[in-house]
Amino acid sequence: MADKKEYKVIGTRPIRHDGVDKVTGRALYGADFQIVGLLHGRMLRSPHAHARIKSIDTSRAEAYPGVKAVVTAKDFPGAGDAIVDLGEGAVSLKHLQDNVLASNKALYKGHQVAAVAAIDPHTAEEALELIDVDYEVLPPVINVRNAMKEDAPLLHEDLRTDEMGEKSEKPSNIASHFQHKKGDLDKGFAEADVVIEHEFTTATVHQGYIEPHNATALYNPDGQLTIWCSTQGAFTVRAQVSEILQMPVSKVKVVPMEIGGGFGGKIQVYIKPVAAMLSMKTGKPVKVLMSRADVFEGTGPTPGSYVRVKIGATKEGRITAAEGYLAYEAGAYPGSPVGAGAMCIWSCYNIENALVDGYDVVVNKPKTSAYRAPGATNAAFAVETVIDEICEKIGMDPLEFRILNSAKEGDTRVDGPVFPRIGFAETVEAAKEHPHYSTSLDGKYRGRGVASGFWPNFGMKSSVAINVTSDGTINLVEGSTDIGGTRASIAMQAAEVLGISAESVTPIVADTNSVGYTDVTGGSRTTFATGYAAYEAAQDVKRQMIERAAKLWEVDESEVEFADGVFRCTNGKEEEIDFKGLAGQLDETGGPVVGRGTADPTGAGPSIGTHVVDVEVDPETGKVQILRYTATQDAGKAIHPSYVEGQIQGGAVQGIGWALNEEYIYNEKGEMTNASFLDYRIPTCLDLPMIDAVIVEVPNPGHPYGVRGVGETPIVAPPAAIANAIYRAIGVRMRELPMSPGRILKATGKI
Amino acid sequence: MADKKEYKVIGTRPIRHDGVDKVTGRALYGADFQIVGLLHGRMLRSPHAHARIKSIDTSRAEAYPGVKAVVTAKDFPGAGDAIVDLGEGAVSLKHLQDNVLASNKALYKGHQVAAVAAIDPHTAEEALELIDVDYEVLPPVINVRNAMKEDAPLLHEDLRTDEMGEKSEKPSNIASHFQHKKGDLDKGFAEADVVIEHEFTTATVHQGYIEPHNATALYNPDGQLTIWCSTQGAFTVRAQVSEILQMPVSKVKVVPMEIGGGFGGKIQVYIKPVAAMLSMKTGKPVKVLMSRADVFEGTGPTPGSYVRVKIGATKEGRITAAEGYLAYEAGAYPGSPVGAGAMCIWSCYNIENALVDGYDVVVNKPKTSAYRAPGATNAAFAVETVIDEICEKIGMDPLEFRILNSAKEGDTRVDGPVFPRIGFAETVEAAKEHPHYSTSLDGKYRGRGVASGFWPNFGMKSSVAINVTSDGTINLVEGSTDIGGTRASIAMQAAEVLGISAESVTPIVADTNSVGYTDVTGGSRTTFATGYAAYEAAQDVKRQMIERAAKLWEVDESEVEFADGVFRCTNGKEEEIDFKGLAGQLDETGGPVVGRGTADPTGAGPSIGTHVVDVEVDPETGKVQILRYTATQDAGKAIHPSYVEGQIQGGAVQGIGWALNEEYIYNEKGEMTNASFLDYRIPTCLDLPMIDAVIVEVPNPGHPYGVRGVGETPIVAPPAAIANAIYRAIGVRMRELPMSPGRILKATGKI
Repeated sequence: MADKKEYKVIGTRPIRHDGVDKVTGRALYGADFQIVGLLHGRMLRSPHAHARIKSIDTSRAEAYPGVKAVVTAKDFPGAGDAIVDLGEGAVSLKHLQDNVLASNKALYKGHQVAAVAAIDPHTAEEALELIDVDYEVLPPVINVRNAMKEDAPLLHEDLRTDEMGEKSEKPSNIASHFQHKKGDLDKGFAEADVVIEHEFTTATVHQGYIEPHNATALYNPDGQLTIWCSTQGAFTVRAQVSEILQMPVSKVKVVPMEIGGGFGGKIQVYIKPVAAMLSMKTGKPVKVLMSRADVFEGTGPTPGSYVRVKIGATKEGRITAAEGYLAYEAGAYPGSPVGAGAMCIWSCYNIENALVDGYDVVVNKPKTSAYRAPGATNAAFAVETVIDEICEKIGMDPLEFRILNSAKEGDTRVDGPVFPRIGFAETVEAAKEHPHYSTSLDGKYRGRGVASGFWPNFGMKSSVAINVTSDGTINLVEGSTDIGGTRASIAMQAAEVLGISAESVTPIVADTNSVGYTDVTGGSRTTFATGYAAYEAAQDVKRQMIERAAKLWEVDESEVEFADGVFRCTNGKEEEIDFKGLAGQLDETGGPVVGRGTADPTGAGPSIGTHVVDVEVDPETGKVQILRYTATQDAGKAIHPSYVEGQIQGGAVQGIGWALNEEYIYNEKGEMTNASFLDYRIPTCLDLPMIDAVIVEVPNPGHPYGVRGVGETPIVAPPAAIANAIYRAIGVRMRELPMSPGRILKATGKI
Repeated sequence: MADKKEYKVIGTRPIRHDGVDKVTGRALYGADFQIVGLLHGRMLRSPHAHARIKSIDTSRAEAYPGVKAVVTAKDFPGAGDAIVDLGEGAVSLKHLQDNVLASNKALYKGHQVAAVAAIDPHTAEEALELIDVDYEVLPPVINVRNAMKEDAPLLHEDLRTDEMGEKSEKPSNIASHFQHKKGDLDKGFAEADVVIEHEFTTATVHQGYIEPHNATALYNPDGQLTIWCSTQGAFTVRAQVSEILQMPVSKVKVVPMEIGGGFGGKIQVYIKPVAAMLSMKTGKPVKVLMSRADVFEGTGPTPGSYVRVKIGATKEGRITAAEGYLAYEAGAYPGSPVGAGAMCIWSCYNIENALVDGYDVVVNKPKTSAYRAPGATNAAFAVETVIDEICEKIGMDPLEFRILNSAKEGDTRVDGPVFPRIGFAETVEAAKEHPHYSTSLDGKYRGRGVASGFWPNFGMKSSVAINVTSDGTINLVEGSTDIGGTRASIAMQAAEVLGISAESVTPIVADTNSVGYTDVTGGSRTTFATGYAAYEAAQDVKRQMIERAAKLWEVDESEVEFADGVFRCTNGKEEEIDFKGLAGQLDETGGPVVGRGTADPTGAGPSIGTHVVDVEVDPETGKVQILRYTATQDAGKAIHPSYVEGQIQGGAVQGIGWALNEEYIYNEKGEMTNASFLDYRIPTCLDLPMIDAVIVEVPNPGHPYGVRGVGETPIVAPPAAIANAIYRAIGVRMRELPMSPGRILKATGKI
């Protein structure tokens, strides 16, 4: 279903503004940053997954030649008991601080315990070995089910939720429990002809961004702190650092360098406040870089989880009841994405009677972080494979089943919101009509699977300023880190308003002092919300340009119209001028024109996608080969189709990795044993066919061009789609991720 | 006369925002700039004051190990015959290009002829010696009177104005002639009881900024050029570079680093386009730094001049007629500040019959550049000393004479404009009432002199954006290089509107991509015009904050008023909130608030100052000692009085240097023989008493707070005031600048 509106820029595929900079290696990343007098910081990390810190003696390190400062948790300002809000609900400041530098306990191997600043990186590394930490090693718990047990080793003393989700006197590892409910579950299951229930587990998975975390901090004697770093959200770094260090936000300036991938993992801060503390102590700029192992062991992955779902349906294929139980690993501190998982678990479908229970559980792993549709993939793996089983039972085509049950405009989600216009059924139709679905799949051990995925998308806050240049171009100043081509997709929305080309826009990603407040690049919000702010800023420019045209022609503003890139006089005078022409006459008509736009849109349109995959399983090795992959997705309106396709392809590939290979492997001491890209296996081009991305356009009524976020949805369906395909290939239902060769062989009874 | 309006921030003296950065040495200047892969560029300069360039052979330099590129004028793009407008009238592109790299002729010693980029500065310097330039040395002409003679050596073939100012067939060194006229000169002189006429000469004088010119350029394969540099106006650099290199302005980004002084001398470009050309050729970033000698020999000073004035007055002290002749040295290419000199020469006074002739004359010296009230000091030296002589003749107090003749609101200037409300008489009154003027000056060889000075001030274009931060502060993004404390003076105007402190504003001087068009910091326009834009941006913020308050209280916007920093509900509801409180609630009321303001104000208020100086002349050495110095000046409204005082003091000191010591000394070959701060003598703290700056406030009706520019006026009066004081000390009228010991001794017949 195509949007029929005619656009000149939107929907085209211009070359990205930062393209040459990136392919020539000229783009500056955090590790490239240079400044006079730079010191180098390195982190001491806990070698134990769980240990009490009895004491830390930094004196030998401090005395080491070339060392300029050592910091530990003792250097934090007070206020450790405060509850703070960084824009996503209340969190404990102590937890934030402790995750950055452990105070009384180290809660995972790789947990930051102390830091050194020295004249060079080698000296800093040598000095780390001179820091004497007296640990009392404690037994670790690294699995959500074990952590929920009554006799599990306890990470914290202040968590008091019991296994049933009730408040309790006794400490536990359960940080919180919640429930969403709709209708009458008993009645629903009673109406069902078929009820299927299963348990599922998923492993801890990393975002796998290429660029490790980095930060250079410079604290000035006037109290101004500047941080140059890789981040998905400069303003979010500002908020976290100002809370952790108890500084006013206006004293912290964050300069976002180019970013080498994030996928949710570059929102939480680790080394940034530490670099700042080292700069405060030394009076010098301090740069801290992570190694790859640091990234794996010390930064937030997406959680391992235990999921149980029970779905009832009639033999005609109508879902009558659905019950879900989600227990997600938060890592060392509360805050898993179980809340988002619960938003998504039932949201593809219109179900009258449904329930979801969510548990947030701490374990001795790094505090989890966001990762592309956080929490949704875990839940979808369970739901979409059980649905596949139901379809098999009732003998219904799984796409027909999805069309029949698909959520539509006006339906109420189990977690509360009412759907605006969405395009779920349209994506299933697109999958059904795609040649892939009707092409026969011959051969032994081969199977085709389908699954759908949902992500609600978010709006949040963005600001844009536009400066008009005399040669008819504009500079567009934005606060959104450009990860997936958003310089282009935001610039194009302003260009469309002003009737100029995408190339006539120079997008600038500014620091936190130089642009209005803008939330993270994440939640699939950037092209939607920052694009909205750019639209508003361009409208502000347009209004002023109309005033200028009126002044030029000595007519009233109401007698000037702007259409197809041309200002025209409507009072009979034969005057017209295009944007470029008028931009060249600003000097004569009142001086510069600057526009500004902000957005905090509430109408983020959910995006749903449906994937079709063909696999072949090698019965000898258990290896699953992806033969063909097609992903359809509702983009609302694709501003730059290539980048929408890129998001769909990238998300699908990450979902495939998660499905087949990726997992943190732990030994009995709670140590990750595969903290490198050699041993933590992500798919490469050689592993996969081209992903066929099909854009469906059901315009989002909450955006002037109908944009929906597209970045996250495509990671949700792949594990379930592949599991369904594997079942058709070899007749085994996989309910544990990843579906690695070993697990396949085990499931088929080969090992 | 004080402005009676009550302000909370304006008129106070907060610490400047960049203060700590500057005193700790942390502020980054152009020479500090670092970037990966940097090459170093150096300039080959002409050793001759006047020479034809027969050929340039760069082959030996190009072959020298470590050299990456050599450029000459041949590397310029074409379009050399074009006439371009950089915002201050039509100029020849060929002249612009030739001044940056000489093509057919070198027109002054130090003229840039070629440039080398190499792996380090030393290699670049060594390679310069391997460039073979075949010069045909020509006789130079370095003095305006000689250059106007019919048989003078000719610099250009295309200048065709004769000594009478008429168009001629014959080439000359006279670039242009113009005349302003008012009333009937013959009638005026006939009415006079006393008529005095004299000739004056002034020497070539440098701005004496501490930081030499610098530039790092990086040209990207996508056609984007970035230049980091010291400049008074990033947008002006952008305009010049884009014309010289024939690139669209939108492809040039200029990043203004901190500036170590400019005074008009950091507007014209010299090395910036050359650094860009070297980067284009090498594909690498190239940094070019000038030495002090390069600055003296290769950059624009203010012109030497010949001035003749004739003034007639009645015995009651009324000026009846005034005639002036200004011949200013343009340097090697047309464009002396004689136009500005002619604007100023008669503008302190209301004269019915007046005339001024202006001549712009090329000589074999660097192309002149702006220097604080360019052109005005030369003229005032003549006018204000002749008036002193008239006062002596008619026995009238020179301050009374000035009050009697002072220009007032509604009077028409000789060059055309009609005065708005101005405060000339008020500055003279302030000088008269100052204890200095009534304190007796005892002792031999001592004398007191007075003089006044005028500068029209300019408006021009500025842009400001304001981003509101949740802690109640604002970021103010501006395009004006901060030379004399304008971060503070601009921030204070926004703070006043919003009812917050100056410290609650973080001012950011942005690059040309990140802020709207803004003209140079110069013409005493910054606090006036950029302050005006800041006022407008703050008003834009205020309007939006009122909307937010209305939303918060669920009332209509018309029911919210803002006064004394507090938003109040006026409909009876007892609601009020201050700016900080409301800033903390933006998230709940619609998201970020961003304001924007632009200005191109026409109401720049002229500023006039009156100076009183006591001197003592050493009859043995001819050395003039400044005993006491008082400068009164109309500031309209002093936003930050300390910086207004600083401008008055700084201007007076530069005027004293010009009066007593500073001059380019040339030998017969046209070579400057004193191109260092050891030999080109500027006054230091040890040479001078504290300058007593008296701020007079006659509000400028063309600015919301009444601001007038203050930076330039204070350099205008000093040479004349000191000459008048010297006359009273030793009875000799000095009519040649500088009034150095040698000239004093010569005038007194001692040598």
